Amino acid sequence: MQLYDDERFFDAYARMPRSQDGLAAAGEWHQLEPLFPPMTGQRVLDLGCGYGWHCRYAADHGAASVLGIDASARMIAAAQERNAAPAITYRVADLDGFDFPQAAFDVVLSNLVLHYIEDLTAVYRKVYHTLRPGGCFLFNIEHPVFTAGVHQEWIRDDSGAPLYWPVDQYYRPGPRTTVFLGETVTKQHHTLTQILGGLLQTGFQLKAVEEAMPPKSMLSLPGMADELRRPMMLLVKAVR
Amino acid sequence: MQLYDDERFFDAYARMPRSQDGLAAAGEWHQLEPLFPPMTGQRVLDLGCGYGWHCRYAADHGAASVLGIDASARMIAAAQERNAAPAITYRVADLDGFDFPQAAFDVVLSNLVLHYIEDLTAVYRKVYHTLRPGGCFLFNIEHPVFTAGVHQEWIRDDSGAPLYWPVDQYYRPGPRTTVFLGETVTKQHHTLTQILGGLLQTGFQLKAVEEAMPPKSMLSLPGMADELRRPMMLLVKAVR
Repeated sequence: MQLYDDERFFDAYARMPRSQDGLAAAGEWHQLEPLFPPMTGQRVLDLGCGYGWHCRYAADHGAASVLGIDASARMIAAAQERNAAPAITYRVADLDGFDFPQAAFDVVLSNLVLHYIEDLTAVYRKVYHTLRPGGCFLFNIEHPVFTAGVHQEWIRDDSGAPLYWPVDQYYRPGPRTTVFLGETVTKQHHTLTQILGGLLQTGFQLKAVEEAMPPKSMLSLPGMADELRRPMMLLVKAVR
Repeated sequence: MQLYDDERFFDAYARMPRSQDGLAAAGEWHQLEPLFPPMTGQRVLDLGCGYGWHCRYAADHGAASVLGIDASARMIAAAQERNAAPAITYRVADLDGFDFPQAAFDVVLSNLVLHYIEDLTAVYRKVYHTLRPGGCFLFNIEHPVFTAGVHQEWIRDDSGAPLYWPVDQYYRPGPRTTVFLGETVTKQHHTLTQILGGLLQTGFQLKAVEEAMPPKSMLSLPGMADELRRPMMLLVKAVR
């Protein structure tokens, strides 16, 4: 994750639409927002908060307190600059370093971070521990079809048009190396059994399972129609 | 489904290991069996019972009554011949023709049938209606990665060895034509959102989500190691 402290990568990340324009520019937001529980008075933890868009959303919708942690000092600095609010605390910490105090939060969020984590079950246990009974865990993780993609890239025809999305070694969870924003990135492939079965085995109840589809309004953007050809993100809502 | 009344297809089906040797020859059984609730005294419905192996299992493990329905008269005849038991009734009926009496069953099973059904939500509603509160719905459906496979076949190299499994048009649920046992078969692709989200929206609680992997003991069988390269079946346990 220290990749996000690399200047060149960080600059490329900063130019992504979702970095510049926030939640409204994220193709999955129209599905993620309705999954948020009511924020009024809630104590919220955001694991891997990035620029803090979701922290800001929680604060703007009445959260009593929001703690956003991110392993990248640059990212936390950017969050403090762009998405500060009295209810929000941003802190540099990774998921190994954070102490996950017992029953201290009503809601735990995590957006596009868990596919960098090797041991998902360990995180599930920590989140379970830090949520109050009845508390909500809402996350967005790269879809197993995406992380099991060979080099996480389309097979293309001679003109460069996508032919199909190649899946292989699905039942071999673990590191997958790909190129993201011009840099080599290692993600972790998890099977659906690990992602959803893991939650159930930890003791969570599943409340929603949704694959992110771009909204119709975005389908004219370059490459967006191809997003209907294979799933990229899985949105999951679970309750302790 | 009337395909199973076609003599040539039925004969080819009869030669499959799982047809000849039953549950023990099915690569997913080692995962499906532990998901069965205790059968003692239960009223069990099997949707698409085929040869009746699961009905027989339920009866052998103490079910009070077992009703197996299948759209194919040939299949029901074979079930009566191979897997009869005093507690079991076999009946020719498809999912549209069956009346799903209210709260009449404790357990509903369905093995490798729901991917032939276009409107999964309609079936979920009927199953919910026919289960008593607290009753269990256990099914095995072809995995979305499998049903979204282009022609449901590997891309192969010149020697015929699988290179990768091609996924396309994932977010276009509906009919997919493939060749199974030498016959053209139309299956229905459902997204994971439809399969799992649909259960949650119907009111079910999810209890288990497991992708079927062949047991180590079968990995030396021809082609079986390739089954680790993409998921074929999804096992789901839900409770009303």
